[in-house]
Amino acid sequence: MTWHMAQRAQRLNPSTIREILKLTERPGIISLAGGLPAAETFPVEAMAQATSRVLRDTPREALQYAASEGYGPLRKWVAQELAGQGLRVEAAQVLITTGSQQGLDLVGKVLVDPGSAVAVEQPTYLGALQAFAPYEARFLPLQGDDEGPLPQALREASDARFAYLLPNFQNPSGRCIPLARREALVQAAASVGLPLVEDNPYGDLWYDEAPPPPLAAAAGDQAVYLGSFSKVLAPGLRLGYLVAPALLYPKLLQAKQAADLHTPSFNQRVVHEVVREGFLQQHVPTIRRRYRAQRDAMEAAMHRWLPAGCRWVRPSGGMFFWLTLPSGLDATALLAKAVDAGVAYVPGAAFYSADARADTLRLSFVTVDTVRIEEGVRLLGGVLAQALERMPAQEIRA
Amino acid sequence: MTWHMAQRAQRLNPSTIREILKLTERPGIISLAGGLPAAETFPVEAMAQATSRVLRDTPREALQYAASEGYGPLRKWVAQELAGQGLRVEAAQVLITTGSQQGLDLVGKVLVDPGSAVAVEQPTYLGALQAFAPYEARFLPLQGDDEGPLPQALREASDARFAYLLPNFQNPSGRCIPLARREALVQAAASVGLPLVEDNPYGDLWYDEAPPPPLAAAAGDQAVYLGSFSKVLAPGLRLGYLVAPALLYPKLLQAKQAADLHTPSFNQRVVHEVVREGFLQQHVPTIRRRYRAQRDAMEAAMHRWLPAGCRWVRPSGGMFFWLTLPSGLDATALLAKAVDAGVAYVPGAAFYSADARADTLRLSFVTVDTVRIEEGVRLLGGVLAQALERMPAQEIRA
Repeated sequence: MTWHMAQRAQRLNPSTIREILKLTERPGIISLAGGLPAAETFPVEAMAQATSRVLRDTPREALQYAASEGYGPLRKWVAQELAGQGLRVEAAQVLITTGSQQGLDLVGKVLVDPGSAVAVEQPTYLGALQAFAPYEARFLPLQGDDEGPLPQALREASDARFAYLLPNFQNPSGRCIPLARREALVQAAASVGLPLVEDNPYGDLWYDEAPPPPLAAAAGDQAVYLGSFSKVLAPGLRLGYLVAPALLYPKLLQAKQAADLHTPSFNQRVVHEVVREGFLQQHVPTIRRRYRAQRDAMEAAMHRWLPAGCRWVRPSGGMFFWLTLPSGLDATALLAKAVDAGVAYVPGAAFYSADARADTLRLSFVTVDTVRIEEGVRLLGGVLAQALERMPAQEIRA
Repeated sequence: MTWHMAQRAQRLNPSTIREILKLTERPGIISLAGGLPAAETFPVEAMAQATSRVLRDTPREALQYAASEGYGPLRKWVAQELAGQGLRVEAAQVLITTGSQQGLDLVGKVLVDPGSAVAVEQPTYLGALQAFAPYEARFLPLQGDDEGPLPQALREASDARFAYLLPNFQNPSGRCIPLARREALVQAAASVGLPLVEDNPYGDLWYDEAPPPPLAAAAGDQAVYLGSFSKVLAPGLRLGYLVAPALLYPKLLQAKQAADLHTPSFNQRVVHEVVREGFLQQHVPTIRRRYRAQRDAMEAAMHRWLPAGCRWVRPSGGMFFWLTLPSGLDATALLAKAVDAGVAYVPGAAFYSADARADTLRLSFVTVDTVRIEEGVRLLGGVLAQALERMPAQEIRA
């Protein structure tokens, strides 16, 4: 072959989740796999009005090349919105990105050398592992418990370029880091000079109470913060943002220019037009109500249909249940049987940078309605029960 | 500072052009600097109708996460369109990108190791240099003439990972590689196993006759081809594509997933809705007519107002005149004076990977109308004439 690939291309691999999603496109499969927001929540009418107005009032600006930093009024809106969550930043620190996935890619590009350690939770967001891996990061797993990573684990990761944390309703585990642990983590990171990259796509999706302020509110210049419009408006717009300290911002901006010049000006102006007068204050509560009901339906179905020995912690927000199977069961090995039975999930192994736990899986409760959630969990319960029956009794230890 | 940046961040630098564009935002400045398409050519009405239809007929699909490869019907449309230009490809080889700038970034990510040679023309597209530089490419300048790079230069660049070529109405030089030279280049590259990365944002903008078929038509699996909707529709949509050989496609796709998951589904569906029934066949000729008149107006103004010793080749397409100044003049040094006088351009030095020629500059004829083109060139002529007057006679050798 004429083409000689870069070393880092070895670290590019097919996304497990996207491969599974292809399987689940078969009609009739109930997919609890993908992290797709419920399409019923997309504000189609508000979008239609906003696009009409943008194309009527500022068509040339919306369709022309624009600043790499992003659309000024949208950056200002983001800064104001974050202030409401306790994170005080200047609009000048906000960089609009093509989805928050791009924010992760830019962070990797600017901060990760081949062999650099990047500290990550176990499990963690697969897309972040995929963004950092091609820069040849060496992942440093952080020990943790149900409240998040342990402060001591951060102290021991002091030679990492940064710790990547997703404090609110983590993908995939669903856990939310409580206030006291957040404070301890920020302190621990500061004590050893470990920077934080905080990812917050789900913060607005809380069902019991709003999460504590972001780590970045306390960490200041020691943190990069990533946010997204994908979960509160619509992911097909690919609109996210990052907030960076002044010392880091110029390099992230230059990386952004090199990556795609700028995020579509059209999308930025349309979204600003949608959100500028407080639309989200009415809209997000409707999403919360729907997802809360779906979460509760899924948990009820899990109690009803899953065999004894399955364990989970009820997520107080976000999109996912994280299920630990009776030990001896392997979620990856069972997936084909589940798809045959008509239900799909993501095996938990995909979310580990090392020492993957085969007995875990992720279920999304936001994509399908409560009727199909019930049916999907029932089918899953059947597959698990069957697998348990086939196991020699001494292997069941849960 | 807590943050430890990656080695490659040293290769990220402010874009000269974007810095200049900021200067030229001062009201009253006639900017011949940026490569901004004339906003008058943006098909606002067609866009408005297409967005309405997309949000009426397929709102959920348009606003949801989507495949990283791109929207199927758009990929098919691209493949058919390219067939009309002599480039036979399968839709499966088409990857939709967030502007063709992203295509350059993905190519760099997958193919360039620190220290890898990348062969580039002198001058070449600045955005490509900026995309490849952070992957720590070592640029290998290709010798060339008015017909493009010399085939012998490609043969001598056999250890480069690829040669980056922009055959049609190059940015910045405006030159179009004639058919015979294309054939010789493809042969030369094949003879030494040198892959080609062909960038074609301007191919549709021809004013005298359509350019010869792309290099990729003859080079087959030895070429990656990049295209864009920025110049024929609107750049603010950030919509481009690349076509890759089957062996390379999966890695480029995985790099795309890691970079931004997918290009906005909304934008892809809207653009497909605009172009699907042949809109460009009516629309592009209107752009050609406008830009041809502006090119001719600029050339007439250059003959009228530029001092003797200025040289250029009339571009038969694209967006730019490439001007060589009477020797002894330095376009970078003169820019501040030009901006003071009320006109802006891009100094040619920005487009060289090495051995920058200080006596060159780039003028865009597409952004402002013929009246301001005339006035801008008149102002530039005044600045150049003044600079020549101030030079000792023996330094003028042109």
